[in-house]
Amino acid sequence: MEPGPPGSSGPAEPGPCLSGQRGADHAASASLQSAAGTEPGRHSLAVAAVLPAGGCGERMGVPTPKQFCPILERPLISYTLQALERVCWIKDIVVAVTGENMEVMKSIIQKYQHKRISLVEAGVTRHRSIFSGLKALAEDQLNSKLSKPEVVIIHDAVRPFVEEDVLLKVVTAAKEHGAAGAIRPLVSTVISPSADGCLDHSLERARHRASEMPQAFLFDVIYEAYQQCTDYDLEFGTECLQLALKYCRTKAKLVEGSPDLWKVTYKRDLYAAESIIKEIISQEICVVMDSKEDNKHVGHLLEEVLKSELNVHFLDFKLVLPSQKTENLMQIKEFSKKVKERNILLYGLLISYPQDEQKLQESLRQGAIIIASLVKERNSGLIGQLLIA
Amino acid sequence: MEPGPPGSSGPAEPGPCLSGQRGADHAASASLQSAAGTEPGRHSLAVAAVLPAGGCGERMGVPTPKQFCPILERPLISYTLQALERVCWIKDIVVAVTGENMEVMKSIIQKYQHKRISLVEAGVTRHRSIFSGLKALAEDQLNSKLSKPEVVIIHDAVRPFVEEDVLLKVVTAAKEHGAAGAIRPLVSTVISPSADGCLDHSLERARHRASEMPQAFLFDVIYEAYQQCTDYDLEFGTECLQLALKYCRTKAKLVEGSPDLWKVTYKRDLYAAESIIKEIISQEICVVMDSKEDNKHVGHLLEEVLKSELNVHFLDFKLVLPSQKTENLMQIKEFSKKVKERNILLYGLLISYPQDEQKLQESLRQGAIIIASLVKERNSGLIGQLLIA
Repeated sequence: MEPGPPGSSGPAEPGPCLSGQRGADHAASASLQSAAGTEPGRHSLAVAAVLPAGGCGERMGVPTPKQFCPILERPLISYTLQALERVCWIKDIVVAVTGENMEVMKSIIQKYQHKRISLVEAGVTRHRSIFSGLKALAEDQLNSKLSKPEVVIIHDAVRPFVEEDVLLKVVTAAKEHGAAGAIRPLVSTVISPSADGCLDHSLERARHRASEMPQAFLFDVIYEAYQQCTDYDLEFGTECLQLALKYCRTKAKLVEGSPDLWKVTYKRDLYAAESIIKEIISQEICVVMDSKEDNKHVGHLLEEVLKSELNVHFLDFKLVLPSQKTENLMQIKEFSKKVKERNILLYGLLISYPQDEQKLQESLRQGAIIIASLVKERNSGLIGQLLIA
Repeated sequence: MEPGPPGSSGPAEPGPCLSGQRGADHAASASLQSAAGTEPGRHSLAVAAVLPAGGCGERMGVPTPKQFCPILERPLISYTLQALERVCWIKDIVVAVTGENMEVMKSIIQKYQHKRISLVEAGVTRHRSIFSGLKALAEDQLNSKLSKPEVVIIHDAVRPFVEEDVLLKVVTAAKEHGAAGAIRPLVSTVISPSADGCLDHSLERARHRASEMPQAFLFDVIYEAYQQCTDYDLEFGTECLQLALKYCRTKAKLVEGSPDLWKVTYKRDLYAAESIIKEIISQEICVVMDSKEDNKHVGHLLEEVLKSELNVHFLDFKLVLPSQKTENLMQIKEFSKKVKERNILLYGLLISYPQDEQKLQESLRQGAIIIASLVKERNSGLIGQLLIA
């Protein structure tokens, strides 16, 4: 089962591809084009993105920095890059990674065929990494393919589910207000402890918000703020919007974001991300079958039953099995190992096809349940098995 | 594959049971007993818990209130009740549910054989629900089995992974300070918006904490606070610690909690909870096999190989197959449907047993991968299948 058609990088791209949201993106993209067209200058807006990815992920409790943790065998940051790449009006994506992860990052870019990416060396704090990214965009270096954007998006490498919609909103608001950022309601009440570890006071939940990503800035505003700010800010600060306020008197516009903006922080977030990616992938499946008449009939019946198990579009019916001999169990196994390298999980399913209509329906229902659970779980331990419905 | 041995409610209990943490709990429990023994009164502390469960889960984006959402077919709240029940020194657990969910809750208690639970009707807000629970504990009603505790724990129905360790810490701190609550570092920066939807100021992340659950109070302190507080507090307040501070001048002791305390809020949290529960369940598996000599040898070899795939304890080797005839495919299927009702997922696995040592090892490794993935995924769509290693 192929995990949905790949994105813009072509069919050879390995790893699952979150193509489910493309429809919505196209619509949003069109609206930016027209929004940009109505700007005073009548030029489309030059937008770049900076992605600090120098963190070590100490909260995750795993040795791998969280942005490089695999989800369905693909590093988390690759999903985030894919989400940004899908947005055609983001011209450049500058990723700040530590020296020791530079080669890892290069190989990810190559393997997943990421485009429009430039790498810079991360600083020791988040703010320093962002500053590095901004410098790369500011300087018109010789041989540099980067040019200074009008608006710069700052996003996190560990927020893979960002949608074009919210990117558009923060960019549009930044163009107008100089700065903008996504916010979310607080999940927990925030308190202020006293020095002795007791409650000093609690904050009214309704009057506060969690500051999330993405954020966007007029490039000149945020670059000026980073140039002006103190070493203390660069070491201990956490909020770019605050820098714009403090050093450029720019009051950021706050944009309500969706729950999808959440940051992969703990191990449980990796679990959640994996389930969400599986869910997106299972939205589109491709049914591959023999073209004999009898089977075609079963295939159409199966399609009907499958629709009740999976929320799917049926994309294609065609014969791609290399030979009829794959009925042989061992050959299915060998073939499944081979296609696994291209991230295709292959299972055999034998549907009994009795004349009795009721028994046939039961058999199809069983088959649909098995297909649905295989598609949803993507269990690579079971590839090559011949299952019976 | 049985999902680990059930907890205190006996082997007939349906649904998965999080028994993995019992060892640690016993140790913690012993330390409370001795801690209580050293208290001035030399009595063990009377502790009860109140669980507000009247929420409607609007943030989840699903029609079912989140505390009743199924995880591996068992409602979320049942896991939370189980976590509290495991703690032997919590005498009563008062759950506040809305009138319309009262019957659902009763059936959950019966189905999962929960003990020491009393139900009260929830109010329209969280604070009102907690107040209902406290009233039930305060009043010595005729025929009531509840008596006033010295310390009361307040917890959320949607935080199923609470450990005895942190319950002990907040109870001990409440006994000393009058009130105590678990806290966690903030994941996002908290900001305060101005009236026009722009950034007014951001809060220094290091100087604030997220207030989580569980919390604990001297019963008289929190009951007094709820009796004193205003309708505005009951309608719009979110923080019990704040009520104790405001109305009883009791400064709560703050206790650093683990990441496990997180609250199931969004759909992604259900995914994460399911993965965590699967992981806990897969810590203990029971290998059931034929007792013939040859197979026993393979069984021991398999055990060795499985250890590299699963972090398991091997609990038991015994013959429980109802008859040798289960080799018949259809009979495996029928039998698997039957035991599924008792929440046992049964799959067949045929391991080829060649004389060639290298081939045998490969076969065992394949078998171990298949078993590990079945245990981890708990895919009920594949029960009754005969898999080949």
